[in-house]
Amino acid sequence: MTERRLHLNAFLMNTGHHEASWRLPESDPYAHVELGHYVHLARIAERGTFDSLFLADGPQLWGNLAQRPAGALEPLTLLTALATATEHIGLIATASTSYNSPYNLARKFASLDIISGGRAGWNIVTTAGAEAARNFGLDAEPAHAERYARAAEFLDVALKLWDSWEDDAIVADKAAGVWGDDTRVHPARHKGRYFSVEGALNVPRTPQGYPLLVQAGSSEDGKEFAARYAEAVFTAQQTIEDAQAFYADLKSRTTAAGRDPGHIKVLPGIVPVIGSTETEALAAEQVLEDHIVYAHGVGRLEALLQLPPGTLELDAELPSDLPPESVIEGAKSRYTLVVELARRERLTVRQLIGRLGGGRGHLTFAGTPEQVADAIEQWFTSGAADGFNIMPAVLPSGLDAFVDHVVPLLRARSLLREEYGPRQTLRERYGLPRPANQYVTAPAPALARV
Amino acid sequence: MTERRLHLNAFLMNTGHHEASWRLPESDPYAHVELGHYVHLARIAERGTFDSLFLADGPQLWGNLAQRPAGALEPLTLLTALATATEHIGLIATASTSYNSPYNLARKFASLDIISGGRAGWNIVTTAGAEAARNFGLDAEPAHAERYARAAEFLDVALKLWDSWEDDAIVADKAAGVWGDDTRVHPARHKGRYFSVEGALNVPRTPQGYPLLVQAGSSEDGKEFAARYAEAVFTAQQTIEDAQAFYADLKSRTTAAGRDPGHIKVLPGIVPVIGSTETEALAAEQVLEDHIVYAHGVGRLEALLQLPPGTLELDAELPSDLPPESVIEGAKSRYTLVVELARRERLTVRQLIGRLGGGRGHLTFAGTPEQVADAIEQWFTSGAADGFNIMPAVLPSGLDAFVDHVVPLLRARSLLREEYGPRQTLRERYGLPRPANQYVTAPAPALARV
Repeated sequence: MTERRLHLNAFLMNTGHHEASWRLPESDPYAHVELGHYVHLARIAERGTFDSLFLADGPQLWGNLAQRPAGALEPLTLLTALATATEHIGLIATASTSYNSPYNLARKFASLDIISGGRAGWNIVTTAGAEAARNFGLDAEPAHAERYARAAEFLDVALKLWDSWEDDAIVADKAAGVWGDDTRVHPARHKGRYFSVEGALNVPRTPQGYPLLVQAGSSEDGKEFAARYAEAVFTAQQTIEDAQAFYADLKSRTTAAGRDPGHIKVLPGIVPVIGSTETEALAAEQVLEDHIVYAHGVGRLEALLQLPPGTLELDAELPSDLPPESVIEGAKSRYTLVVELARRERLTVRQLIGRLGGGRGHLTFAGTPEQVADAIEQWFTSGAADGFNIMPAVLPSGLDAFVDHVVPLLRARSLLREEYGPRQTLRERYGLPRPANQYVTAPAPALARV
Repeated sequence: MTERRLHLNAFLMNTGHHEASWRLPESDPYAHVELGHYVHLARIAERGTFDSLFLADGPQLWGNLAQRPAGALEPLTLLTALATATEHIGLIATASTSYNSPYNLARKFASLDIISGGRAGWNIVTTAGAEAARNFGLDAEPAHAERYARAAEFLDVALKLWDSWEDDAIVADKAAGVWGDDTRVHPARHKGRYFSVEGALNVPRTPQGYPLLVQAGSSEDGKEFAARYAEAVFTAQQTIEDAQAFYADLKSRTTAAGRDPGHIKVLPGIVPVIGSTETEALAAEQVLEDHIVYAHGVGRLEALLQLPPGTLELDAELPSDLPPESVIEGAKSRYTLVVELARRERLTVRQLIGRLGGGRGHLTFAGTPEQVADAIEQWFTSGAADGFNIMPAVLPSGLDAFVDHVVPLLRARSLLREEYGPRQTLRERYGLPRPANQYVTAPAPALARV
């Protein structure tokens, strides 16, 4: 049996995950629309032999423009450009099941999978918030359960479309004048509650069959969805105990869904803040916190907690009469995480904003490279994580620091590959099998020609 | 005043525009899903200092697989990959207004425009055919007029979205902690018959403001749409007289729509078949015709003419009682072109299929490089064309032949640029101004920062 290895994903977001990162002298405030910036980040992550990189997304303009860099290059477009600038790293794009058509989205991911040589991944989101809904003809956000019902049907349709060409549907018999075998192409013939899709996809089956399926919702609906479909899960966990409970719960739900629990990889998000001493790391954190504009943070926190503007006081704790998660229609698990963090540590609103500014609820690992590597190893070996979603507070410097100082320690401890070795698909990097085609009874070949 | 120059677009389609091209010994039957094939073609076109390259598209699996290469990489995805492999050439993707959401599509084109440094173009199509409709929840194709009404509203929404950020909306004041100016971002607030889109785009204004708008429908609805929006028009014309009439008509419609007729470029499609002698060129054409599988062609022609299968006889002319264009709901102008071609030359079904096999209704210019250059010059200087949509019968060899043998003649006659010179946007290559932002009364700066 091969050794269990850590899976690392680089979560790229313009000048970094700390909301004030763009204000540092080193940061380029136009980085969010600079291809060169992202190419540079992708190459750093490849130097660190990460499994993948990842882009978040929502089809709306977030928050207010004054506060921090807004807008972005559309993730599937940006990742396609990055595919040509990298060789090994997986490319995971977020895309919404609520505001896309399965036929269009399935084509784009199939095309990216072919162009990247099997390195595409899809972070499946249902997209919370009324702003997005109102960009797509709706007056309000669909209910949480409704969004997940649509997501499940979307997946079923997309999987039919990705399987619609058998791996050997292309015959290419020039002499006979027969290019393809129509009996090996299967129309979706799907008629459901949300979608009606008749035809076969107009892209042949791809190197991976379909993109690695990734998911990040930690609500009840989200975990059930993940257990059924996801191969990798991003999650925000503030303590190792919470992370262990989440990990065990998700693996057991996956088993209950009839799947191998080894075929779902759990990656908590961490914000590494690295210094050559612990003091230096904490000082770097403090510099970032000093750049936060708190007036903006209050408004954002009120929106997350679904409170009217002006409710929160900066130097008081959260109100005691907040509603339970069950009535929240937005990002349910994020809501609970933030409320529990504030109550557990009795944080004022100001302190809470400071903590969230760094990673929006993800855990900060601040310290020396050894301390960060120790924390990673501890989580990895104690049933809290199969790997990590690395969310540097400042980019590119935070990713550089992680790759230069933490990665060598992880390699020395045999937790991380020394080099990529031969080309692999993203699914192979994550130690997962190529999916069989649902229309074929015989086992699929290892790799399609394309 | 600068000299009037020819505009050249390379219409790329797997192994070439002739339906039998994939059967030639030189052709790669997997070319349609090989990024390397398209990179090679794009670089040939750049060697020929073409203005742009272009990919057709429809969101359905075309025709039958036995006949010829089917499926493709999705055009926006493929062009993004080509953007990173080229420096100067414009990148025009076809996308449907009937089967996309304005918010999603506007983002993707804006992202491609930024990534390519202002080289994006959009060939706007309404997508004929029930196959596509049935992939998007409809039972049948929407009526022709309905599709065009939706297209016009789609454009209006997209133009609002592309203008939603003023060019100087990003302030980037690190000291004050102010990244952007919210007063310079304008939500679409669109409520119409087909679309309701509330917010601003989540991509800043792009180098071109928005992609070059291209159109290829030659029906009445199509020409009216082109007169209102299009900056370049692809068209199929079988004779110089027809091309002159189309050209004059479109320019006068553009004037009537209140636009400068110089701001719409007309590019008929031509299939160049080049030989060192005329006999050699005609022999090359004959080889291709000999590879046509006629049984497939009959079915395709019946579909185009909306006749029941089994109606047409291979060695007879078309039936005399075909319906008028007005009742056709599919590709109206293509229908009329094919019927008129068959009647004018009294072609049998077999002969008609042979003629259509090369360029699906586009004119073949077969001959020596001088003969092809002469025909191009004649059309260009006699009010039939502002340039050409070059559709080689076989790829890459046909594009190579055109660039190696015809392009030098066009340059010697001062009809085509000798080299690209400094970087330009696609719109600059076509000699068109950067559009002003509809929300700004002062003139726009020459180029945005991004």
